[in-house]
Formats: sequence, C-alpha cells, structure tokens
Amino acid sequence: MAGMESEHPGYLEDKADLTKRLRRIAGQVNGVERMVDEERYCIDILTQISAIRSALDRVAIAVLDDHARHCVVAASEGKRDERTTEMMDAVARLLKSR
Amino acid sequence: MAGMESEHPGYLEDKADLTKRLRRIAGQVNGVERMVDEERYCIDILTQISAIRSALDRVAIAVLDDHARHCVVAASEGKRDERTTEMMDAVARLLKSR
Amino acid sequence: MAGMESEHPGYLEDKADLTKRLRRIAGQVNGVERMVDEERYCIDILTQISAIRSALDRVAIAVLDDHARHCVVAASEGKRDERTTEMMDAVARLLKSR
Amino acid sequence: MAGMESEHPGYLEDKADLTKRLRRIAGQVNGVERMVDEERYCIDILTQISAIRSALDRVAIAVLDDHARHCVVAASEGKRDERTTEMMDAVARLLKSR
Repeated sequence: MAGMESEHPGYLEDKADLTKRLRRIAGQVNGVERMVDEERYCIDILTQISAIRSALDRVAIAVLDDHARHCVVAASEGKRDERTTEMMDAVARLLKSR
Repeated sequence: MAGMESEHPGYLEDKADLTKRLRRIAGQVNGVERMVDEERYCIDILTQISAIRSALDRVAIAVLDDHARHCVVAASEGKRDERTTEMMDAVARLLKSR
Repeated sequence: MAGMESEHPGYLEDKADLTKRLRRIAGQVNGVERMVDEERYCIDILTQISAIRSALDRVAIAVLDDHARHCVVAASEGKRDERTTEMMDAVARLLKSR
Repeated sequence: MAGMESEHPGYLEDKADLTKRLRRIAGQVNGVERMVDEERYCIDILTQISAIRSALDRVAIAVLDDHARHCVVAASEGKRDERTTEMMDAVARLLKSR
C-alpha cells in the first residue's frame, strides 16, 4: 500500500463545488456557441470568453491548492520531490511557460 | 443606414468553424467535470484545464482577428476610433490588464 | 514614398510617457535583482515580479493601441491587411498562443 | 528558533543564476526603452516585450519552485499550511486571478 495520500486526490472535500463550477463553465461555453450562432457582436463574445477564462483559472487554482495541501505536503517523504516537480510543471503550463 | 459593416459581425465566414471549436471546448469542460467526479489525479485535471484555456485563447484570437478586419478596418471613418477602443479594451481584458 | 503611415510609428505622441514607464520597469527589475541578492523572502519577490508583469502588459497594450490607430487604421488600403495580420500575431504572442 | 527553513529563502542555490537572469531582463527592458526612443516599429517592440514577459515568467517559476521545495515542504508542520496559502496566493497573482 502506497499510503493514504496516493489513494485520494486532494480535492475530494471540494468535489461538489468544483463539479458545480465546471458545469456552470460548460454552460457559459455553450452560451458563447449560441452567441456566435446568433451572430452577436464580436466584442460581447470576447467579453464572455474572458469571463470563462477567469472562471477556469479559479478552478485551476482551487485544484492546485488542494494538490499542494494533500498530494505534496501530505505525501510520504519519498514522493514529495516528484510531486513538487509535477506541481511546478502544472503551474508552468498554466502560465504557458513550458 | 450605417453601412454594411455594422450589420454583420466580422466572424461570419468562420461561423461554422468557431461553432465547432466551441462545441469541442464545451465537451472538454464536461470531460473535466467527469474527471473530478471520478476523482482523477489533480495534475491530469490541471493539464486538461491548460488545454482548454489554450483552445479558448485561440477562439478569442480568431474572433478578435475577424473584428479587426471587418468591424474596425472596414468601419466608416466616424466609427473606427470607437471600434478600435473597444478592440483594445477586449485585448486588455484577455490579458487581464483592465 | 510609401505614405505618412510608414514613416512614423504610432506611439510618437506617447513616446515620453512610454520611455518613462520603461525606465521605471527597468528599475523594478533591478530592485528584484537586489532582493534576490539580499536573500529576501520568495513570496515578496514573486509579488514584485507580478507587479512588473502587469506594468509591462500595460506598456504592451499602449503600444498595441497606438499601432492599431496609426499603423493599421491609418494605413493605405493596400497595407491594412498585412498590418492587421502583424497586429494579431503580436496579440497572440502576448497571449502566448503562437 | 523557528528552524532552518525560516532563516534562508529557498532560492539560495540558484542565487547566482537568478541574479544573472534578472540582470539580462533589466538589459532587455533598457533595450525596449531605446527602441521606443529610436522610434522603432511597434511590432518589433511588442515582440521584444513578449520575450521579456516569458523570461520573467521563467524567473517566477524558478523562485516558486524553490519556495515549494524549501519553504513549504521543508517547513515545520505548524508553518506548512500558512506557507501553502502564501504560495497559492502568489500563483493566483501570477495568473492575475486575485
């Protein structure tokens, strides 16, 4: 057995909240698809896309926060280094620096 | 009549392509919701969110490109200034600088 | 002669302001270098780097705004398409989407 | 005494490298200031600003990586929670989500 930290991802407590936020984001993307279909003004579409990006970033930060607390800090000593590397790679991808 | 440029948004030619891309993005967001529900590993979820953000950014750039070509450049002289301001505000929001 | 628009970049009116802002940003970067040298706390360094990025983004948007107004909109008809493409490529690079 | 982890920031090993990178970035910012002064083409200036932002992001990620390894993971148990919060706030600021 690899220990408790490897069996459950860190976001379990927030699972219902994350699911709700992602469902709302999917709805916003569908809304943008409808806006394009109805030939709405470009700028209104861009405003909506910016809002979706911000909502996605907040979800990413929530998942990353849970990861830091549960998968990195709470990992067995032997796993911490590897998980920190994974976490930093994920941050770099979010910043589009890798 | 304000001229052709004010009656049709600029992305009309790309409408089918944009709609298809947005539908795929909505599907990716649903996929992330499922990943959370299935308690998949945080890092895999973050990788998927980064991919969605990049896909959204590409849609935003496509809409902005059409806006620049059709709504700004092709606008009547009296409207160009206002539309350029709108466009730059949209860019600033995408860069989260406003 | 290619016309007035090709002889002067768009930001001439803002030149003094842009120069001043860039000098301040260079000073902030030097400040971060000093913070590292003095072994200041990581988080304070990151806060300062975030401030520099925001200041740089505002300069980028000012240059882009001038470009849109002077080099794209004011270009001769034959040049507008090429300059719009250049502008959108610059936006994509700022969004790290290209 | 709060323990070794609170006396030295995490980036000490990389100090010379970080200092060198920041010096180069300051030089690039000075270069952009000169480009504006010499009235160089907007797009060339924007390309240079994008390069500076990417270089800054890589420095931020290096500092964050060191922070994660030395200040969070290596902290005494009582400090880890607080330092993880600080780290996530720093990430959120880099993503301009806070």
